[in-house]
Amino acid sequence: MTKRIDFQVDAAAYKHWRVSYEGPVAELVMDVDENGGLFDGYLLKMNSYDLGVDIELSDIVQRMRFEHPEVKVVVMKSAKDRIFCAGANIRMLGAAAHSHKVNFCKFTNETRNTFEAAEADSGQKYVAAVKGACAGGGYELALACNHIFLTDDSASAVSLPEVPLLAVLPGTGGLTRVTDKRKVRRDRADVFCSTEEGVRGKRAQQWNLVDEVISNAKFDTVVAERVAQMAADSSKQDVAQGIALTPLDRRFGEDGSVTYSSVEVAVDRAGRKAVITLHGPKEDAPADMDAFTAQGAEAYMLRLAREFDDAILHLRLNEMELGLWEIQTQGDPEAYAAHEALLLENADHWLANEVLMLWKRVLKRVDVTSRSLVALVEHGSCYTGLLAELLFAVDRSYMMEDEFEGDNRPIAAITLTQANFGTVPMGNDLTRLETRFYGTPEAVVAAKDAMGAALEAEEADALGLVTEILDDIDWEDEIRIFMEERASFSPDAMTGMEANLRFAGPETMETRIFGRLTAWQNWIFNRPNAVGAEGALQRYGTGVRGAFDMERV
Amino acid sequence: MTKRIDFQVDAAAYKHWRVSYEGPVAELVMDVDENGGLFDGYLLKMNSYDLGVDIELSDIVQRMRFEHPEVKVVVMKSAKDRIFCAGANIRMLGAAAHSHKVNFCKFTNETRNTFEAAEADSGQKYVAAVKGACAGGGYELALACNHIFLTDDSASAVSLPEVPLLAVLPGTGGLTRVTDKRKVRRDRADVFCSTEEGVRGKRAQQWNLVDEVISNAKFDTVVAERVAQMAADSSKQDVAQGIALTPLDRRFGEDGSVTYSSVEVAVDRAGRKAVITLHGPKEDAPADMDAFTAQGAEAYMLRLAREFDDAILHLRLNEMELGLWEIQTQGDPEAYAAHEALLLENADHWLANEVLMLWKRVLKRVDVTSRSLVALVEHGSCYTGLLAELLFAVDRSYMMEDEFEGDNRPIAAITLTQANFGTVPMGNDLTRLETRFYGTPEAVVAAKDAMGAALEAEEADALGLVTEILDDIDWEDEIRIFMEERASFSPDAMTGMEANLRFAGPETMETRIFGRLTAWQNWIFNRPNAVGAEGALQRYGTGVRGAFDMERV
Repeated sequence: MTKRIDFQVDAAAYKHWRVSYEGPVAELVMDVDENGGLFDGYLLKMNSYDLGVDIELSDIVQRMRFEHPEVKVVVMKSAKDRIFCAGANIRMLGAAAHSHKVNFCKFTNETRNTFEAAEADSGQKYVAAVKGACAGGGYELALACNHIFLTDDSASAVSLPEVPLLAVLPGTGGLTRVTDKRKVRRDRADVFCSTEEGVRGKRAQQWNLVDEVISNAKFDTVVAERVAQMAADSSKQDVAQGIALTPLDRRFGEDGSVTYSSVEVAVDRAGRKAVITLHGPKEDAPADMDAFTAQGAEAYMLRLAREFDDAILHLRLNEMELGLWEIQTQGDPEAYAAHEALLLENADHWLANEVLMLWKRVLKRVDVTSRSLVALVEHGSCYTGLLAELLFAVDRSYMMEDEFEGDNRPIAAITLTQANFGTVPMGNDLTRLETRFYGTPEAVVAAKDAMGAALEAEEADALGLVTEILDDIDWEDEIRIFMEERASFSPDAMTGMEANLRFAGPETMETRIFGRLTAWQNWIFNRPNAVGAEGALQRYGTGVRGAFDMERV
Repeated sequence: MTKRIDFQVDAAAYKHWRVSYEGPVAELVMDVDENGGLFDGYLLKMNSYDLGVDIELSDIVQRMRFEHPEVKVVVMKSAKDRIFCAGANIRMLGAAAHSHKVNFCKFTNETRNTFEAAEADSGQKYVAAVKGACAGGGYELALACNHIFLTDDSASAVSLPEVPLLAVLPGTGGLTRVTDKRKVRRDRADVFCSTEEGVRGKRAQQWNLVDEVISNAKFDTVVAERVAQMAADSSKQDVAQGIALTPLDRRFGEDGSVTYSSVEVAVDRAGRKAVITLHGPKEDAPADMDAFTAQGAEAYMLRLAREFDDAILHLRLNEMELGLWEIQTQGDPEAYAAHEALLLENADHWLANEVLMLWKRVLKRVDVTSRSLVALVEHGSCYTGLLAELLFAVDRSYMMEDEFEGDNRPIAAITLTQANFGTVPMGNDLTRLETRFYGTPEAVVAAKDAMGAALEAEEADALGLVTEILDDIDWEDEIRIFMEERASFSPDAMTGMEANLRFAGPETMETRIFGRLTAWQNWIFNRPNAVGAEGALQRYGTGVRGAFDMERV
């Protein structure tokens, strides 16, 4: 699996999905091309999916919000006969390296979360109209929808057969959504998750595994009626026209570097490090949201978010040995602030909201990225508002103090804006500052009092906004020592440590999926009972069941 | 590691700890015997510990509550020069099987939690007086104390060097207590957890890693003064005289069975199953708490809890291939209820409180036990109050419905008491019924309305108290099919599934330790970077650092 995985897709050439629009309702039809796998060696039978299928899905959900704001309800269906979706492709999983499995699951989890975020943040509801077998990752897709219709015939059941069939977990949120979202009683969940054939008909509804069971004969009619009613009842504002998400301006260098219009990724292979620089705007902020809308995908705040998102995904999947990401910003803080302010002041404008909510998703990707993250606040940087959020997302930050010899860039300063106090909460539903100052809420108040001020090193340090401030004498050595040390640690230990330290305090379904469920799945993905030569994943389809070491640990 | 690990120890013959008492203050002195390891092949140098050291510690904490209720503050110290505690013994960890590592961590975690529970439930406060290096599991011991004094000399530092030194996590609650209990800022926690030598002096206090830093010269005096003040300020009620925790009445059979006075463990090796039967009382309930106190450790409710606790620990560590525990009760529900009622009605009596809080700890052990748990509600059973909690702790429960041919035992019934509604909450701070009915609080209300009634199968089913009710025709086959199926599943998948399904909804520090932190540690304990031939755990002490696969996953 050495070819570059690309997260940018051409919406005119989806292989696995069809989308159609009729007023406020969109149909999202899963029709996976058996021969369209991202890698060789497996067929995507029975609407099973691999990362390529999910990359298209992620693109569709993103475009639905920007290009089709008129859509209030998205109905997910299957084009296959007697099968809704069979879940993640088992042969792909069996052949994939541990690292690919884990990263695949992370991306699919993030994509499932976008279903729910679409309704929570924009009123765009996803519903599943399930006909046929809805198994494993297929049911996890339905679980991510906020309403599940199930037809009542002998072939149609929902199931999570991973445990009995494959000796792994329903790891794309399945276990967590069953207990936390659908609130299925735990002993019933136990029965459900260990029953290969799943549950169908009335019992599926009684146990709250689905919302409605409808006879096969009436299914299409009733679903259409119910969906029309949902659209009519929707509180989503009417928007006639979206904007096009045009292709990114992106060039790959031979050394692995990537250059976007406002984001640069440099690669230091010896140091096992990627340097991601986010640039401030070159142009003035649009005068108003009409002007912003006219710019569309070219508008700076939207462009920057999309480019940064793409860079994150590229590095995660294609550059796994770059264990340290150094985040930089460079630009004029005030020019940046003007762009951001337009969105914050018009947060009730549909497009301003969409751009801010995209930032929320991108920043959440940072939070759950399994890389050591460090931000350098150098002279000339523009850590303001949403860009300052990066300081609170990373594991550590270092800030330049006072003038540096031969450095004529404007002195480093951090500026907090309204965006740091509730616009883009983490998965734990706290702001990054609330998480940072968990247990000392008065520190959040102090930070808020400093909103709008350009905080130089000493002030930023006093407010607890950075890990360390360093002057010209210490900067280079201290940073170098940190980087070298970090690059020498076991990547696994870093992953475990960071996953624990980044989310203090309360948990939500989302953090439980990325924290608890993912961690257990990673463990199981390393165990011979699943992935060994005689493990269930390897033996799947051979007619021979997995041979297990029966010791409980 | 095939010898039987015994969790019962003779308090007169501790190898690794000394305890002394002076009025309301106890000194708990760690003085690990290098040659006293539980297994061969390692020396317990520098106050490092293995499971044997922790079994003694657990015993001390338990006795402190029952035998020394006069104690209000327990001061933990080290008898070694320049070392407080070096943490878990690395050679032991390096040589131990994955299953032993995981079970060792679970038990040490449970024991650390008892420090905090002692103050929360009984007002008995644990404080750490740290002189010398306090590293890894050593600092995790201090973290479990509710106040940490640190002396200010060059040798004395607190540290969590697991990540840089061993490529594993501080898995005995360390990462979680740093962020959630001590609320250390996350970037400081990152610095701290990746700094081998740790943090000492003023910085340790500034970062809230310790509560007080005291100069070496004044340390003993100041600690003594502060501890005396804590004892004087304590709201713990004065109790002059405790009761002795006498040795358990326990016999091991050759087939692996264990017989206690009120608990029986039968073993079905072919079925990979242990059957644990809790028997109702043979004697009448004591007339009052004076009578109960006179019975001491022989009192039924205390005896039953201690025996059950010992059985759990024995099965966990010594019978790892028995992946399924079948829980049974047999006895007169009303006789049992009278014993329990005495405690509930006298919950403000110190000993009644201690017995109830022991039940709380024992039931929490059940919750985090990595075995498939099923309860059978057969005729003649006594699932009442605390014993009925078992039905809500297990993964599934089956109940006999109507009469069974040839079975003359009283018809199966479940009786809820006040004990099911707040006396013994789970680690997530919800009652087991609240967790079971997460999302449908009205079901908890309905259950409470039925308090006191002997609920036969149909009623219990209607209230959602059992997974399934079965009559004479179906019982045997259904139970057999379930047992066989369960025993055929991958133990790892079961562990991951059960750990996710058992704790719906909110999280606490405690659930985060057993859920998130433990899961990541288990993963890392399986990764070559830690446990491979070139991994950091294996290479520790050789002077050669671990060689790592640098891929991030």
